[in-house]
Amino acid sequence: MAPQYAPSLRSRLPVVALLLETIFILFFAFYVEVQHIFSITFYAEFQDVHVMVFMGFGFLSTFLVRYGFSSTGFSLLVAALAVQWAIVFRVLLQLPYPGRITIERLVLAEMSAFSSLISMGVVIGKTNPVQLLLMSLMEVTGFILNEWLIQTLLKVKLKHIIMYLHIYGAFFGIMTSWTLYRKGIEPRHEKEKSDRKMTLFSFFGTLFLWIFWPSFNSAYLLNKDMDFAVPLNVICSTYLAMAVSAVTAIALSVLFNPRGKLNMRHVQNCILAGGVAVGGTMSTFPQPWVAMAVGLSAGIMSTLGHQYIKPLMEIVFKCHDTCSILSVHGLPGILGWFVRLFLQIANFDSTTIAVRFTVYHILILLITLASSLTMGVITGHFRN
Amino acid sequence: MAPQYAPSLRSRLPVVALLLETIFILFFAFYVEVQHIFSITFYAEFQDVHVMVFMGFGFLSTFLVRYGFSSTGFSLLVAALAVQWAIVFRVLLQLPYPGRITIERLVLAEMSAFSSLISMGVVIGKTNPVQLLLMSLMEVTGFILNEWLIQTLLKVKLKHIIMYLHIYGAFFGIMTSWTLYRKGIEPRHEKEKSDRKMTLFSFFGTLFLWIFWPSFNSAYLLNKDMDFAVPLNVICSTYLAMAVSAVTAIALSVLFNPRGKLNMRHVQNCILAGGVAVGGTMSTFPQPWVAMAVGLSAGIMSTLGHQYIKPLMEIVFKCHDTCSILSVHGLPGILGWFVRLFLQIANFDSTTIAVRFTVYHILILLITLASSLTMGVITGHFRN
Amino acid sequence: MAPQYAPSLRSRLPVVALLLETIFILFFAFYVEVQHIFSITFYAEFQDVHVMVFMGFGFLSTFLVRYGFSSTGFSLLVAALAVQWAIVFRVLLQLPYPGRITIERLVLAEMSAFSSLISMGVVIGKTNPVQLLLMSLMEVTGFILNEWLIQTLLKVKLKHIIMYLHIYGAFFGIMTSWTLYRKGIEPRHEKEKSDRKMTLFSFFGTLFLWIFWPSFNSAYLLNKDMDFAVPLNVICSTYLAMAVSAVTAIALSVLFNPRGKLNMRHVQNCILAGGVAVGGTMSTFPQPWVAMAVGLSAGIMSTLGHQYIKPLMEIVFKCHDTCSILSVHGLPGILGWFVRLFLQIANFDSTTIAVRFTVYHILILLITLASSLTMGVITGHFRN
Repeated sequence: MAPQYAPSLRSRLPVVALLLETIFILFFAFYVEVQHIFSITFYAEFQDVHVMVFMGFGFLSTFLVRYGFSSTGFSLLVAALAVQWAIVFRVLLQLPYPGRITIERLVLAEMSAFSSLISMGVVIGKTNPVQLLLMSLMEVTGFILNEWLIQTLLKVKLKHIIMYLHIYGAFFGIMTSWTLYRKGIEPRHEKEKSDRKMTLFSFFGTLFLWIFWPSFNSAYLLNKDMDFAVPLNVICSTYLAMAVSAVTAIALSVLFNPRGKLNMRHVQNCILAGGVAVGGTMSTFPQPWVAMAVGLSAGIMSTLGHQYIKPLMEIVFKCHDTCSILSVHGLPGILGWFVRLFLQIANFDSTTIAVRFTVYHILILLITLASSLTMGVITGHFRN
Repeated sequence: MAPQYAPSLRSRLPVVALLLETIFILFFAFYVEVQHIFSITFYAEFQDVHVMVFMGFGFLSTFLVRYGFSSTGFSLLVAALAVQWAIVFRVLLQLPYPGRITIERLVLAEMSAFSSLISMGVVIGKTNPVQLLLMSLMEVTGFILNEWLIQTLLKVKLKHIIMYLHIYGAFFGIMTSWTLYRKGIEPRHEKEKSDRKMTLFSFFGTLFLWIFWPSFNSAYLLNKDMDFAVPLNVICSTYLAMAVSAVTAIALSVLFNPRGKLNMRHVQNCILAGGVAVGGTMSTFPQPWVAMAVGLSAGIMSTLGHQYIKPLMEIVFKCHDTCSILSVHGLPGILGWFVRLFLQIANFDSTTIAVRFTVYHILILLITLASSLTMGVITGHFRN
Repeated sequence: MAPQYAPSLRSRLPVVALLLETIFILFFAFYVEVQHIFSITFYAEFQDVHVMVFMGFGFLSTFLVRYGFSSTGFSLLVAALAVQWAIVFRVLLQLPYPGRITIERLVLAEMSAFSSLISMGVVIGKTNPVQLLLMSLMEVTGFILNEWLIQTLLKVKLKHIIMYLHIYGAFFGIMTSWTLYRKGIEPRHEKEKSDRKMTLFSFFGTLFLWIFWPSFNSAYLLNKDMDFAVPLNVICSTYLAMAVSAVTAIALSVLFNPRGKLNMRHVQNCILAGGVAVGGTMSTFPQPWVAMAVGLSAGIMSTLGHQYIKPLMEIVFKCHDTCSILSVHGLPGILGWFVRLFLQIANFDSTTIAVRFTVYHILILLITLASSLTMGVITGHFRN
């Protein structure tokens, strides 16, 4: 069955979208200008992230046979509004550079939109476009508020917390899906039916994400005073982690299939897990082999999760996860969190600093989880 | 019905194409060399434009169910010849850098090919590949002659007139289509029938154009002595205009559909209008909110145009416009022309300079329109 | 008939893949670190090559109707393992920069994987994934050993021999295919059946290769002390050669078709021949017109080869070449070898140096052919 378009969708979606655009334009007219400092060397990395958000996610959900054709259009709508709202809301909270647009700020906005597209992956095929739009705006709001909260309470730098976007997006989406389920409106799962040719479009989106992930993990570390050694390390480590993660996910997918065939649904989700996990460790600049080991673990974890945890969640917790987001973004995100903790502790000489770091690190995770779960439940209840 | 291949297509296309190639190679042998000055920072922008011309336009017309399969091949043929002809013809006219190939010259050649691909969008599905090829070469010739005329008569810099490519391409194509219609060979419109899966390929081409449009609007402004603030401004403004334009086009498409569904044909054409309109204003470096307002207007204008003007043109003027080029490139191009006029006049202190600028600005538009309409009619009569 | 999966594929593929990954990670842990010197200007070129290997080749073989769906997944598996093995094996042989990972080393690894994907194109659709994987690792091993042999015996710089990758990959693949045929296991050719929509996916992969070929031909010439004039020359020449080669291949394809239609199989293979041929001449920095003439010859050669040599090879030599690799990579590679010889000889003043160069140049080709043919036969006999 096609997504349950509210009968009033025709009137509601255009009104919401055009009203938001008008408000954004007025806000930009009074509060935002372009900063005239620019190093064009960042531009290629920015474009890679831009391709990931709009091309990667745009085609990722086309495998849903009943939803695929218009999903690319709605993904574009949601992402385009989420990016603008992320710019506006960060300016409102006076986060990094008040009132000025820079390439760095566009990268941050794209990463926030990325986070909301992750949470969309949990509910896609079960909600109408207006709901997706509201959900996405709530997610971006919650994600930036969470950042602001952690920066204000714990004085942690933004570049150490931006990579929690995977954890935030995954748990936000899961709670929204769970709340929708509990309200008695059982989603129609036949929407998960896929078509072989459509799967190729979907794989195409995945491959864009996979290829440009090194840019994603390094783009937010770039700044005009930067030491160029940092992105090189991050780029090489992410590159290797992606390679290992892809091999692992494909190997396990063949192993799990009774006929030894490749399950493209496994591949299309799980090859990305290595990038998610290693993304969380980037600020410690791990050696390549550590990144590869993380990629291996994340690949195993996400394939097992897709195979066993996803159906379990549906039966036990009544929570349907269309794109297996928990296994691809949630759990590998937490794996990355653990690895970063171990790597940092190993680097500290003093136990006091290590304990202090551990406490802060645990607090960041707890605040992020609490805020994503709360916002997810709230968003789920907004269902009209 | 499949495109009316002339019975002699088999003999004519190879002869024309190979003859042209031989002439081009001889020309290059005697007149062209590579300039040994190069800043590799431009290369990423150049590649983005290259992807737009060959990947974006290559897949844009695949939605035509009877034409899609080979259209990607013929688009490649036409674009590859148009690019070479643009290089050769600019060298012949001794425009910017006589006899030398630079990345800037390749960007200019790609933009000329872009212009001819716009005009192809009007007639695609109604003409055979040899006609498309001749039309494309005529368009590039006319477009560069128009540039040369304006530079010679009015002493205006190339970077202020290159963005008239949308207006030139659109009106050239419309006149060609109109002339073909008048000659009694009524095009078969069932060729506009589309297939849902093919629409995804087509959307994929559109999305490449949409994503890389900031590079398109900024690439021709790059030069080795440049102030890097210029492209940043252009990149951010185009980026925001594209986002607003996409949201507007999608919202209006849902509004216009009686069942509140998304018309992917709307989306695939109209989301680009913002980039077209804002492209015309780039040399005035508008603030982000201005670019966003322009994107909003262009999105509204092109969706209304696709919905109401396109069918009207067919009935009243007997002119069929396959890809709705008038609404996507023609009208938004003129909108950008108006906005640039207002922005420039607002910046001038002296009334004399403002009047002088206005006269020049109107003259450029009139010359461009006159030359594109004339060349379009001439090209339409070349039909064999 | 679907590829003959060995009944034990389910157990073998995961074991081989995961074992290799474990060995690679251990090797990296003890021998490899990241070099902290980096110029981010190379990154855009590296990403283009990365897109070619994983996106271009990933979709190139989707035209095989019975193989397409999972071929993208298996291509990813093979390429991801080949890249890692290339890094490990080059470190083992202490080639360029012992034990350190740099962007240059990643580019070299991608080019080695490229070579193995070329040889895969000969046998694809006729072998199972485990065979493809072993074949790919054998190819990378042989290719790097060949490089090492030439560098050791003839003291030739790596950047002069890396472009033999097309010749090595093509003849390696052909010998493997021939050996498989001789062993009595006649491949099922109905696997070459294609589907029109799948052809578009395949063309999409081709187009990525075509668009980014200038980056491929120039990426390995980049180094931190480089003269930026070199890549500009290489980029412009490759760009023009690709354009001419595309036009030629399309024109001849129409000429060869009795109904004057475009054969997309011709296009999808033969438009790349110009880049292959001109790649071999890059270290002599040919003028644009030379590159264009090479592109024209390579386009003619590969289209003729696809039309006449491919069926002949199958009947006479009992060697089936799925993607027409001999005509697209083998013969144009040798054409490039000849052109480089002529260009170099024309530049030398002294006959002694010219003769010496000729001897070396012939020796490199002979060693490469001998080593690729031998390794190909050995690999063909490994068939389990």
